[in-house]
Amino acid sequence: MVMSNWYLQVGRMNSVLAKLSDEELSSSTAPGRNTGVYLLGHLAAVSDGMFTFLGLGENLNPKMDEIFVRSPEESSLEKPSIADLKEYWNKVNALLSEKMSQIAPQEWFNRHTAVSEEDFAKEPHRNKLNIVINRTNHLSYHLGQLVYLVKK
Amino acid sequence: MVMSNWYLQVGRMNSVLAKLSDEELSSSTAPGRNTGVYLLGHLAAVSDGMFTFLGLGENLNPKMDEIFVRSPEESSLEKPSIADLKEYWNKVNALLSEKMSQIAPQEWFNRHTAVSEEDFAKEPHRNKLNIVINRTNHLSYHLGQLVYLVKK
Repeated sequence: MVMSNWYLQVGRMNSVLAKLSDEELSSSTAPGRNTGVYLLGHLAAVSDGMFTFLGLGENLNPKMDEIFVRSPEESSLEKPSIADLKEYWNKVNALLSEKMSQIAPQEWFNRHTAVSEEDFAKEPHRNKLNIVINRTNHLSYHLGQLVYLVKK
Repeated sequence: MVMSNWYLQVGRMNSVLAKLSDEELSSSTAPGRNTGVYLLGHLAAVSDGMFTFLGLGENLNPKMDEIFVRSPEESSLEKPSIADLKEYWNKVNALLSEKMSQIAPQEWFNRHTAVSEEDFAKEPHRNKLNIVINRTNHLSYHLGQLVYLVKK
């Protein structure tokens, strides 16, 4: 259920992206708010971070975390092109999907890598499955903003 | 985990509401998009609908579903005041929380009331827990829009 809701939101994100021209994606989602391009980079970088959290290996591109998670849109950091960002988003999703499918059911209830063994003993809900629940909500949150770029 | 993520998003919604004046809540979340008031009514009505879906009894106010779910903001239907809507939102959440806490763990994996027994046999993920996962994402989605009313 958790996984199917994750894929549902990723699919919705892809539908929204398919509806937007590069020009539309480069616009602000609302006056003074992030552009679609920044949100795409942000979502891709946050998904890329899931590899580490889930113990599935290294992030594909840690530089993206610097640009789109630890820095706001207004930072002077050089950003990739829209084509490169879309490719990155698709690559992260494809590999994440492949690797997550190999996680055994019981393994989802083990601790994720950002919580210590001591803390996990006290808070057993801080497991790998919870990362996916949390990231699905995060994706939905920004999806609600990205749809504002789609013409009514 | 699913429940704690639901309460996390409800808590975030309450924090956002606490930051907004009635005037701000009455503004559009982005040009030509829904106002905060409509989204508050929409979220409260969708949560109210969970009583039926989870088999917890009747909706508190089915008229709200007509105004905020089945009709767009532009409909000519008369809308409640902001004070009444906030009271409705709080009432729905308090009762939902009380009733959901009485659902036994195994019961969450039973079918929700909008799926037939035949369909449930084929799609066992269409259970009560899935309703909460789905509604949590729905709440996050609109929360991403409501925060645009909070001044930076």
